[in-house]
Amino acid sequence: MVETLTFHDELLQIVKRITKEQIMPRAAEIDRTDEFPHDIVKILGENGLLTMTLPEKYGGIEANSLLLAKVIEEVSKGMATIGTTLLSTHSVIRMVALLANPTQLDKFYSNLANGHKLCCFCLTESNAGSDAKALSTTAKKDPNGGYILNGTKIFATLSQVSEYYLVFAKTEADEISAFLVHKDSPGLRFGKIEDKMGLHGSSTGDVILEDCWVDDDSLLGKPGEGWEMLTKVGTSMLRSWGAAAIGLGIAQSALDHAVEYAKERKQFNKRIGDFQGIRFMLADCATQLEAARCLVYETNKRVDEEYPNISAYTSAMVSMSKCFATDVAMKVTTDAVQIFGGYGYIKDYPVERLMRDAKIYQIVDGTNQVQRMLIGSILMKQ
Amino acid sequence: MVETLTFHDELLQIVKRITKEQIMPRAAEIDRTDEFPHDIVKILGENGLLTMTLPEKYGGIEANSLLLAKVIEEVSKGMATIGTTLLSTHSVIRMVALLANPTQLDKFYSNLANGHKLCCFCLTESNAGSDAKALSTTAKKDPNGGYILNGTKIFATLSQVSEYYLVFAKTEADEISAFLVHKDSPGLRFGKIEDKMGLHGSSTGDVILEDCWVDDDSLLGKPGEGWEMLTKVGTSMLRSWGAAAIGLGIAQSALDHAVEYAKERKQFNKRIGDFQGIRFMLADCATQLEAARCLVYETNKRVDEEYPNISAYTSAMVSMSKCFATDVAMKVTTDAVQIFGGYGYIKDYPVERLMRDAKIYQIVDGTNQVQRMLIGSILMKQ
Amino acid sequence: MVETLTFHDELLQIVKRITKEQIMPRAAEIDRTDEFPHDIVKILGENGLLTMTLPEKYGGIEANSLLLAKVIEEVSKGMATIGTTLLSTHSVIRMVALLANPTQLDKFYSNLANGHKLCCFCLTESNAGSDAKALSTTAKKDPNGGYILNGTKIFATLSQVSEYYLVFAKTEADEISAFLVHKDSPGLRFGKIEDKMGLHGSSTGDVILEDCWVDDDSLLGKPGEGWEMLTKVGTSMLRSWGAAAIGLGIAQSALDHAVEYAKERKQFNKRIGDFQGIRFMLADCATQLEAARCLVYETNKRVDEEYPNISAYTSAMVSMSKCFATDVAMKVTTDAVQIFGGYGYIKDYPVERLMRDAKIYQIVDGTNQVQRMLIGSILMKQ
Amino acid sequence: MVETLTFHDELLQIVKRITKEQIMPRAAEIDRTDEFPHDIVKILGENGLLTMTLPEKYGGIEANSLLLAKVIEEVSKGMATIGTTLLSTHSVIRMVALLANPTQLDKFYSNLANGHKLCCFCLTESNAGSDAKALSTTAKKDPNGGYILNGTKIFATLSQVSEYYLVFAKTEADEISAFLVHKDSPGLRFGKIEDKMGLHGSSTGDVILEDCWVDDDSLLGKPGEGWEMLTKVGTSMLRSWGAAAIGLGIAQSALDHAVEYAKERKQFNKRIGDFQGIRFMLADCATQLEAARCLVYETNKRVDEEYPNISAYTSAMVSMSKCFATDVAMKVTTDAVQIFGGYGYIKDYPVERLMRDAKIYQIVDGTNQVQRMLIGSILMKQ
Repeated sequence: MVETLTFHDELLQIVKRITKEQIMPRAAEIDRTDEFPHDIVKILGENGLLTMTLPEKYGGIEANSLLLAKVIEEVSKGMATIGTTLLSTHSVIRMVALLANPTQLDKFYSNLANGHKLCCFCLTESNAGSDAKALSTTAKKDPNGGYILNGTKIFATLSQVSEYYLVFAKTEADEISAFLVHKDSPGLRFGKIEDKMGLHGSSTGDVILEDCWVDDDSLLGKPGEGWEMLTKVGTSMLRSWGAAAIGLGIAQSALDHAVEYAKERKQFNKRIGDFQGIRFMLADCATQLEAARCLVYETNKRVDEEYPNISAYTSAMVSMSKCFATDVAMKVTTDAVQIFGGYGYIKDYPVERLMRDAKIYQIVDGTNQVQRMLIGSILMKQ
Repeated sequence: MVETLTFHDELLQIVKRITKEQIMPRAAEIDRTDEFPHDIVKILGENGLLTMTLPEKYGGIEANSLLLAKVIEEVSKGMATIGTTLLSTHSVIRMVALLANPTQLDKFYSNLANGHKLCCFCLTESNAGSDAKALSTTAKKDPNGGYILNGTKIFATLSQVSEYYLVFAKTEADEISAFLVHKDSPGLRFGKIEDKMGLHGSSTGDVILEDCWVDDDSLLGKPGEGWEMLTKVGTSMLRSWGAAAIGLGIAQSALDHAVEYAKERKQFNKRIGDFQGIRFMLADCATQLEAARCLVYETNKRVDEEYPNISAYTSAMVSMSKCFATDVAMKVTTDAVQIFGGYGYIKDYPVERLMRDAKIYQIVDGTNQVQRMLIGSILMKQ
Repeated sequence: MVETLTFHDELLQIVKRITKEQIMPRAAEIDRTDEFPHDIVKILGENGLLTMTLPEKYGGIEANSLLLAKVIEEVSKGMATIGTTLLSTHSVIRMVALLANPTQLDKFYSNLANGHKLCCFCLTESNAGSDAKALSTTAKKDPNGGYILNGTKIFATLSQVSEYYLVFAKTEADEISAFLVHKDSPGLRFGKIEDKMGLHGSSTGDVILEDCWVDDDSLLGKPGEGWEMLTKVGTSMLRSWGAAAIGLGIAQSALDHAVEYAKERKQFNKRIGDFQGIRFMLADCATQLEAARCLVYETNKRVDEEYPNISAYTSAMVSMSKCFATDVAMKVTTDAVQIFGGYGYIKDYPVERLMRDAKIYQIVDGTNQVQRMLIGSILMKQ
Repeated sequence: MVETLTFHDELLQIVKRITKEQIMPRAAEIDRTDEFPHDIVKILGENGLLTMTLPEKYGGIEANSLLLAKVIEEVSKGMATIGTTLLSTHSVIRMVALLANPTQLDKFYSNLANGHKLCCFCLTESNAGSDAKALSTTAKKDPNGGYILNGTKIFATLSQVSEYYLVFAKTEADEISAFLVHKDSPGLRFGKIEDKMGLHGSSTGDVILEDCWVDDDSLLGKPGEGWEMLTKVGTSMLRSWGAAAIGLGIAQSALDHAVEYAKERKQFNKRIGDFQGIRFMLADCATQLEAARCLVYETNKRVDEEYPNISAYTSAMVSMSKCFATDVAMKVTTDAVQIFGGYGYIKDYPVERLMRDAKIYQIVDGTNQVQRMLIGSILMKQ
């Protein structure tokens, strides 16, 4: 990573400012309209946040996991949808970096360089959720060259607004490969956008591949390598700086609002935060959040040190980070609404949105039950 | 209560049918539009559910707390908004029964008899939430007779659709009295309807009293008696068969959906409910819910036996019921969404609505922190 | 059950008095010495508590599950060891009642009548804990009549102080039968008494069957019926009025001590129970305990109504009762020690003993994980 | 701190070996006899662990908080009593370093150098627990020089086996000062040793000052400075590397035993750790423990960087560390006993001891309720 501590800190200061001045003021409206925030994406792009994982040559800074985690945490304080936009895009970029050959990489990087183009991760299908391997999208060799993809991916974030779609498809009955599909590929189209509880404005929906033709260069790595890389390195790449970091951001935002409210709101002639009942809730939220943050940062540090040969225990820590940070976000946001009382339940205040947003992160990128399976499995092997 | 066990059971069968055939099919739409469900209210009225606490003479069955709890639990399986409609209306009817003189009662009952008129409980103000006594609405004697009310009540359920408004107002600096305000009273008007996280269609909003004139007969009981009755009997009346029962209904509905889904959904070639990870979640939800139900029913039995002289420990049990059942509802609905995975997060399935609806009941009718204050205070006195 | 409500209440008053005057003052000493409390057993016998499940003809009152639960809860407030003594004895009596023929019953009942004899349940083996069916004790037909038993039962409560031992043994490779073994049977001997964390004075240890000969009449029911009855009815018999009730007693005792201490102990010039931090802990403990109690009583009522044909859901409620009440006991006792602070950790005060005693009930009679398996399995079948 | 990373790691390897070879094999016996382990203390001394906070000149390595935490965590895996011995001794050494003048320091250090002498922290009194300031021990100026101390300190660890006693006493009605009392001081004597639930062999008991005369040089710092330093720096010094680190050690030991057992023990023909019910328990324990560890290490790093001018938020993190790590230890040990089942409850296996030992750390060095007060108070000030 081409950065010094100073640079790292300066970048975070910029992100902090963008969050405060550009994202926070837009969050309620994005939530209300459920429209994709192209304006914010443009700002992210202009500040290099969408290309920070690219090599210097293409305008990036080769951001590592820890820096990604901190940037994503920060923007997620403003709105989780923005954190998710970075997560989706950078997880595709980092997967491609692991799999593609120099020619493919150059083309991919050149297209993204200095812009604000997005990427979409296409894995989940209606019968392949936690059991991702059960996917049924197929990629058949076209006798005339290239591949023909067929299948429907669901719950894909940034589904209708991306430049590239990283599609996992079966090249053989038992072989899952990764394809980088450009938005203009013939046969690529989009289905419904989901009407969700929260995470509004994320353009989450169906990506439909109907005899979608892609050239041979769209296959990343060798056949079967996509799945291997996904399970061995990929999830480590994205869970600790993705969902985990967004969980931190959501929870911190909820806690900040709750503390502020607990200082202002008076009942029985006291600030409600002066009642131990409320104060202990705040203390427990802050404690669990700080523990989550220390766990997430330490995990990312280790991931960066070991990358891409993640050790078993570090891999368990990635799952711990994802599970713990997002469970904490669910708890803290639910408590924050409670501390706001009736006001917490209405859309004039941000905490109810934070609570609705928090829920999805216990589910995506491997449910927290799948994380427990992984952690337990590593413990039982050692 | 004029009922036999058989009658009691028959009524619940009818309510079960209404819930299944009339309420459930409408729930998603009411949630989506946030419009008040006049059609459902009509059905409730036709089946006597809005007048069940009236004396026989006026078409009621003098329903006790236990029966109310069971009816409200049942309709809340369909949609919490309907349970809240019954809660709001019957809590006013039961408060009036405790305070009004025979003439007032006859007029009130006659107006409601055999209809589907609603009532609205007006207590909370912007600076008087948990500290209800801090309210600032005033009721001044009109030299020409009657009272002139001024103030703004917030978060009032059924705010724009009720026949009667039970308004708590200060008749002296330190004296809070209860007034029964008819909807046609001059100076009574309505402010905004709140845009809430959930509990849609409940017409929750501001009730504004602007030099609102009511006649002397609108004062219920003696000056100051309203507050006394509210704190001594009133809350016992409504918390154990109101929020607590709605909590049971929401949680049961979420659990039923989750169990059904856990049987249908397969991953890794097994029903997801055959994985202990999910199975134990279901078992814990079912256990806590059943414990909550036993607590709520037993509490209502005792409330009915002691009514209106509720003992201190029964009063603690009322708070326990409210706190425990609604905390369980929050937990069970959050877990139900989790079990549904991504599908739980979208509006095509009912569990995300149940989760949003559940949250308000940890807050209303005395936050669960206020309940803990009450329980602890009784424990420390014994 | 030959009792009226009055009789029922009178009995409980007697038990309450015995608990206060005879059990409580002995508890610390029994805990310290780990010696079996023969003196208390004599008192239980004199007051009919060891024979209450016998028919009237033999001096009993045919106590049902609900009454058993209440009696066991009550004595367990004094000391769990005493509750366990009743549990062990009555669970054998009730199993025998389900399996034995009239001649066997008459002999068994006559021996126990009007006395203070104890019974010991012998199921668990070193490799057959949660998987009870994996037991390896054998019962082979003696060509000269009778059976020869071989095997070692572990963790048997009242192991060295009982009149009868209800032994589960394999009569065929896949057939588990129940034998009622008298203490004087040749080849029955006892191994070590376990040195346990708590539940002192319970005489828990090994029961060794070394070519132990019993006559044909020792076989209860037909071969294989013992296991069938155990799994179908037996566990329902004992979990809801056994471990669950003891859990209630332990938790209530801990809560009572904690409340009393919170009233007396002052810090920062206030009773510690006047700090919300402590008050909310007390409120949560009291709430969960009351919910557990309502669940346990309601479950026992249903068990009594349906006995011996327990419905699937009632059977689930039995598991819920056992799991929830004992988990609550663990929580409440751990919190009670916390409220006592340093004093809670020393043996001059009873709460640390209650905490140590509570732990075993999350484990015995089907661990709380086994209960969750059972509950979940019933949910997934309905 | 005079160490390099290598040295640091080497030291920890030594500590690991001592723990495994010397402490673990003795733990059960120390627990059973409740006798102070002089043999282990000698080993600690020989390896420099009792003097590691001294300056190099006196044979120490000026160990910082992070190293202390890691050493104490490590030995506590063997037995908490040993962690507590280090905690008690080093907390006195570090307090003295903050308060004493060069002459006092030289005398103190010289006495401890290269030995295995212990120190005892004497703060708590029967009416001054959480409210430490309410202590009533007095220190009056002797007209002939020196001070005369009177009072009784309770729950003092290493009460009868220490070289020095750090005594907090009132020099004025509202002025609490710190005195370093040598064991041979006239009037210093010892009362009862407490009979505790766990933490056996810690020599916890009363330290009685009966007209105990000490010379003027025994006063550390100026009058009143002792209290000031205790509240401003002292607690930060000891909570994050003391109780928090011991909590980590206890929890890790319990988890290690549970995982090992879950691999060995089979039921239903599977390793019990292959059942998700158990596996998820292990995963949750491991996750919370790792989060606690990351929090504790990060906190100690910050404490070391800021020492002795601890910022408010770092001070909050110290309380978070203490509260979270010890709550996790209580949870993990309780679950470990559960996973062992019946075997977990008997003294042949170490987990029941770990559970008993864990409980005290939720209480000592500021109960976890006091920690929540501190955390909440800092949140409400920011």
